[in-house]
Amino acid sequence: MFSSIDHAMMLRAISLAKNGQYTTTPNPNVGCVIAYGDEIVGEGYHYRAGEPHAEVFALRAAGEKAKGATAYVTLEPCSHYGRTPPCAEALVKAGVKRVVCAMVDPNPKVAGRGIAILQQAGIEVQTGLLEQDAEALNPGFIKVMKTGLPYLQLKLAASLDGRTALANGESKWITGPAARADVQRYRAKAGAILSTSATVLADDPSLNVRWQELGEDVQQVYPQAELRQPVRVVIDSQNRVTPQHRLISLPGTTLLARKQADTLEWPQDVEQLVMPEGEGIDLHALMIELAKHNINHIWVEAGAGLAGGLLQAGLVDELILYQAPKLMGSDSRGLVDLNGLVSMAQVPELTISDVRMVGGDVRITSRIQHHIQSDLLNADKE
Amino acid sequence: MFSSIDHAMMLRAISLAKNGQYTTTPNPNVGCVIAYGDEIVGEGYHYRAGEPHAEVFALRAAGEKAKGATAYVTLEPCSHYGRTPPCAEALVKAGVKRVVCAMVDPNPKVAGRGIAILQQAGIEVQTGLLEQDAEALNPGFIKVMKTGLPYLQLKLAASLDGRTALANGESKWITGPAARADVQRYRAKAGAILSTSATVLADDPSLNVRWQELGEDVQQVYPQAELRQPVRVVIDSQNRVTPQHRLISLPGTTLLARKQADTLEWPQDVEQLVMPEGEGIDLHALMIELAKHNINHIWVEAGAGLAGGLLQAGLVDELILYQAPKLMGSDSRGLVDLNGLVSMAQVPELTISDVRMVGGDVRITSRIQHHIQSDLLNADKE
Repeated sequence: MFSSIDHAMMLRAISLAKNGQYTTTPNPNVGCVIAYGDEIVGEGYHYRAGEPHAEVFALRAAGEKAKGATAYVTLEPCSHYGRTPPCAEALVKAGVKRVVCAMVDPNPKVAGRGIAILQQAGIEVQTGLLEQDAEALNPGFIKVMKTGLPYLQLKLAASLDGRTALANGESKWITGPAARADVQRYRAKAGAILSTSATVLADDPSLNVRWQELGEDVQQVYPQAELRQPVRVVIDSQNRVTPQHRLISLPGTTLLARKQADTLEWPQDVEQLVMPEGEGIDLHALMIELAKHNINHIWVEAGAGLAGGLLQAGLVDELILYQAPKLMGSDSRGLVDLNGLVSMAQVPELTISDVRMVGGDVRITSRIQHHIQSDLLNADKE
Repeated sequence: MFSSIDHAMMLRAISLAKNGQYTTTPNPNVGCVIAYGDEIVGEGYHYRAGEPHAEVFALRAAGEKAKGATAYVTLEPCSHYGRTPPCAEALVKAGVKRVVCAMVDPNPKVAGRGIAILQQAGIEVQTGLLEQDAEALNPGFIKVMKTGLPYLQLKLAASLDGRTALANGESKWITGPAARADVQRYRAKAGAILSTSATVLADDPSLNVRWQELGEDVQQVYPQAELRQPVRVVIDSQNRVTPQHRLISLPGTTLLARKQADTLEWPQDVEQLVMPEGEGIDLHALMIELAKHNINHIWVEAGAGLAGGLLQAGLVDELILYQAPKLMGSDSRGLVDLNGLVSMAQVPELTISDVRMVGGDVRITSRIQHHIQSDLLNADKE
């Protein structure tokens, strides 16, 4: 069904899409190649929400050469009038003969409409080429569209024996500088960084992206002038975060998830997100609220309480675990608080997708296999 | 100094040496190639203590062709009269012109004597070719020769968060079948398997090598008829192991490290090793005693108590950690008991030498970087 030229063109489109990985959120990363046989006549990618889509850039570059060509797009062209006219119509207007999409729109309510516009204009449309690779470009966009919940990456760091601090709390620099730079890159891709008041009170962290620490490979594709700060979300059910904490005054938006707002004077980019009454903050309800705030990809850096709460609520999609080559002993503090486990059958099962060294540390990436149920947790009281 | 032919020949000798890796203990693995230019005229390896050395087999195979040839040996040829005459003299007698050794004898008291015999006979001798690879063949032999202590590999298995059992003790099959087969291969290479009475009482383990579980790659080079059982060593300061425990009746020798012998009726291959008076068993003294029993490579499978005790006594050379893709939570049982840590500066530092997937589990191999001191521990009372 697909030729080797088709494969090569779609690989190129996927590669182009990645140029937007630090900037498009909440929009998806999309790449487009327009080719006449094996000759590329135009290419483009979506760079930032509010700016033109990938197809627009590719059609502009192709000009008259788009006529009779094939367009390779990593995602079904849009069919709605937003800040720009629908890309499906633009492709029709340009006279392309054939459109290959890696995947259809993940939103079941709109899936196929872009394809229908193309087909009604007599354009040959094929889908499913390198679909998994295309899906991997936009885990957050896809999950929100399908479920209403953001894609959640849980970052943990510990010694080889799963400890985060000595019994007396000492913990500074468990992992090395390469692992910390790696964390910066994950933060830079996320729509939001989620933490708790417990972490803010203990460490007064910045929870931001520091361009200087991103590494040269990222800096080359992501100029400092374009730097986007993920939204900082802090679970703060007891209103313990104050305007004096470091992250409040840093550039970027901060959401404080609270049970009621206080009347302190906060900077304009700090929002108190009042969650429904209950014992603590309902994590599932919070995720739905964040999705409504256009946050579809969350990077979590917090303690054992929130980590366990998110896992037991079935909200974690991916675990990114850094392990330092140290042993800290059974008296030291644990990595994940899980409540009420009495049988190995209840233990969360994961599937490891990647294992590698990052500097002198190990990084293990896993997908969550199945989730166990538990009661609502007071995740920020750890 | 060394040609590419020299390198190729020594690589072959190292590869030959590995044929003895399951059987030579307490002798070292040694391989020998005799070559005339790039033509191999004889090769051999040491297979089992009491049987001829590598050089003898290689010289037999070469016959008259050894005259004027170069002998490549992974270890300096022996100079002592044991069950066989010294290999250095055999090489002189055969008329070889040049001898290349990967490494000299690690025992400082005899190092260089084999080389001296060769040189006195007018043979050109060179050393140090692929020395690190040759050293990796015999970590136990080398460590005992240099320090009087056995080489110790500590095996641990846990969930990703460093837990070995739920709070109620449930733990069966944390790691998968591939990891368990991998453990069988490590056991098969060791001179002894070390555990504690706590483990014997809890699990009644076999602590043996099961040929059926070794995997086809090992079985092909290690026929069932040649199967060697490592010595089982159980730390049992309170005489809790009885003749009824499973490992006592299995083929192979068992040593019970005790503070005093009991008068029960034990099979002939069970020895009660009475250690000096003290609070518990002194692990350092036990290691010296095991080295005297011709055990130079120990594989440890035990609980958090012995693991921590060996680490804090500075006796562990290598950590082999299997991690199952599970999370068991902070209430679950820890991996390593370390006493008295109040500062990150006291935390044992390791260097990771290998990380890989073994089936669905991760295996992390580390070398111990520095050791912390601690009081004598009652390691078997866990």
